[in-house]
Amino acid sequence: MTAIKYYWEHFVPGWEYVSPARSLSAQEITAFAREYDPQTYHTDEEAAKATPFGGLIASGWQTCAVAMRLMCDGYLLQTSCIGSPGLDEVRWFKPVRPGDALRLHSTALEQTPSQKDPRRGTVKFRWDVLNQNNEVVCRMVARQHYRRRSPAQ
Amino acid sequence: MTAIKYYWEHFVPGWEYVSPARSLSAQEITAFAREYDPQTYHTDEEAAKATPFGGLIASGWQTCAVAMRLMCDGYLLQTSCIGSPGLDEVRWFKPVRPGDALRLHSTALEQTPSQKDPRRGTVKFRWDVLNQNNEVVCRMVARQHYRRRSPAQ
Repeated sequence: MTAIKYYWEHFVPGWEYVSPARSLSAQEITAFAREYDPQTYHTDEEAAKATPFGGLIASGWQTCAVAMRLMCDGYLLQTSCIGSPGLDEVRWFKPVRPGDALRLHSTALEQTPSQKDPRRGTVKFRWDVLNQNNEVVCRMVARQHYRRRSPAQ
Repeated sequence: MTAIKYYWEHFVPGWEYVSPARSLSAQEITAFAREYDPQTYHTDEEAAKATPFGGLIASGWQTCAVAMRLMCDGYLLQTSCIGSPGLDEVRWFKPVRPGDALRLHSTALEQTPSQKDPRRGTVKFRWDVLNQNNEVVCRMVARQHYRRRSPAQ
């Protein structure tokens, strides 16, 4: 178990984190897609050329999953996070191609104390996934529940 | 290449599909989590018992990915789908545990012709993931782009 460094109180609106870059190889893209999203443009480099994308692209779900991993490595595993009720928005703006250098830019938007449990709170985040050209390829608006360092009075 | 059976025109509001069941083993849950979402309650059966979930649960991203696979196997690979701009909502209502029998219930909500390209259109869907108790464990509201069988006049 990693020690908890950051509780709900830490994520004040405006808090930001930018991760190091991580890329997906063609092999990682097709392996994920064969398991979870076997559409041609995700599984077959040759056949993908004839699709509107003109070549192999990552499943949008894999882009989200990579963002999650960058978050875990960057800060989430050091927090009191106890899950997520969901997302208000997911947008896939640009295709992610093999070798694209993906970074996560996480921004805290809102901090809400739990109405039910004084030991918990929720944070709303924007999670942008950027590529090597600083284009936002994917945007998510999400909520996560965290334990508080100190219970609400 | 699979032949295309279903184009944009097929997905009239009210269209529904319910998939066969698919479960995730503890090993599949931890394998996905080690790669993409290494939070304790997703990676470690023993340590997960001490978390608010009381045991191992699947990453929410894996639940979404399984829904995508059920959709691909059920109908998507036989359609003219050319990608998704994103989702308006993702909700994870209930934990998904090893062995839960997950089904996808897909419902077409809206059909919108493309403003830019008479050969394309968009469909808005609700995708519910149900477990063996008919509980909705995950709900997504999403859009997908499809080629039309016949261009708009």
